[in-house]
Amino acid sequence: MADYKLYAFGESGNCYKVAMMLALTGTEWERLPVDYFNGETRGEAFRAINEMGEAPVLLHKGKVLSQSGVILDYLAAQTGRFGPENEDERREILRWMLFDNHKFTSYYATLRFLVGLQKSGESPVTEFLRGRAKAAFGIVDKHLAASAFLVGNRLTIADLSLAGYIFFDEETGIDLADYPNILAWRARIAAMPGWKAPYNMVPHAPKARG
Amino acid sequence: MADYKLYAFGESGNCYKVAMMLALTGTEWERLPVDYFNGETRGEAFRAINEMGEAPVLLHKGKVLSQSGVILDYLAAQTGRFGPENEDERREILRWMLFDNHKFTSYYATLRFLVGLQKSGESPVTEFLRGRAKAAFGIVDKHLAASAFLVGNRLTIADLSLAGYIFFDEETGIDLADYPNILAWRARIAAMPGWKAPYNMVPHAPKARG
Repeated sequence: MADYKLYAFGESGNCYKVAMMLALTGTEWERLPVDYFNGETRGEAFRAINEMGEAPVLLHKGKVLSQSGVILDYLAAQTGRFGPENEDERREILRWMLFDNHKFTSYYATLRFLVGLQKSGESPVTEFLRGRAKAAFGIVDKHLAASAFLVGNRLTIADLSLAGYIFFDEETGIDLADYPNILAWRARIAAMPGWKAPYNMVPHAPKARG
Repeated sequence: MADYKLYAFGESGNCYKVAMMLALTGTEWERLPVDYFNGETRGEAFRAINEMGEAPVLLHKGKVLSQSGVILDYLAAQTGRFGPENEDERREILRWMLFDNHKFTSYYATLRFLVGLQKSGESPVTEFLRGRAKAAFGIVDKHLAASAFLVGNRLTIADLSLAGYIFFDEETGIDLADYPNILAWRARIAAMPGWKAPYNMVPHAPKARG
């Protein structure tokens, strides 16, 4: 029986960030399914596990960890892989993870949820989100023009955090070809031993009923 | 001359988070002004200081630190105040800071920027942001029903991160009276020795010209 259990569903890039880390470190784990599209994360039972009402949640040796950034930090310490080598790097990784949560994953993931999964069509909200996402993409693309990875010129959990949603191909109305350094970085991550595409690691959540 | 220099402007709650930390720890600092409303953070000169194009930025002993969460973490270590006491607390603080960046400050600050500063009026975008902000406020309010502060039952940098924008009174269309535990928590923070209101520490940025 795997020590690590992860509440996860396939459509979630935040779950995929953690699944990538587990795959790239060769860590055995067991998936606990999440019936996201039927409201499981908004229900009382799930909120008793994570008051923030979000997946992923990692269970390990009595610990219950939520927020993908916390889980990545924890797994880096547990496995000794992809973490910081000193305090300056630790702060740089934290800086990119906070930017990811505030401006990179956040706008892009919400845009992709509306346009690519809910098929909302275009609206002032999708236009707003796309504008914000493109600004964040520009900043990351420029940074990656000068270095192969976000921090320390090697793969770290900062890359796994920001790259999570970039591997999905649902429609967003943003053409990644406009960000060649992001595409090259994504290819470098995908070439790492053990890497797998999102839905090859975590199956789709059940569709919404009726 | 103060060791700490902070690029900051009054309207920014992210700058205020750091200014509160400096005030509550009795740390001397010098402000470096930011002409935000005339585009300084979007210009090349500022991007050379912070590629993410954001304030606050802290300068200290040759270090250039951005992202309020990174700066709070750094100041907690430097001053020995309001930081974690063990690894479990460190992860809990990180968890709330990531939630803050993703869902609490992010939506609320953007809503307040549009409605309260730009006077955008109501739109599908402000409605979207307000819905998201209210969901995040509900989660924090519920958490604070059971404990005086977010982590460890004492003031930490997690509180300073999430509370930043709560002290401003520009219009957002959200009535904080709907979140009594957040109001009580805000009052507990305001009662801490050294606390000052936002514009009493950091002056307004110059108005947009033309």
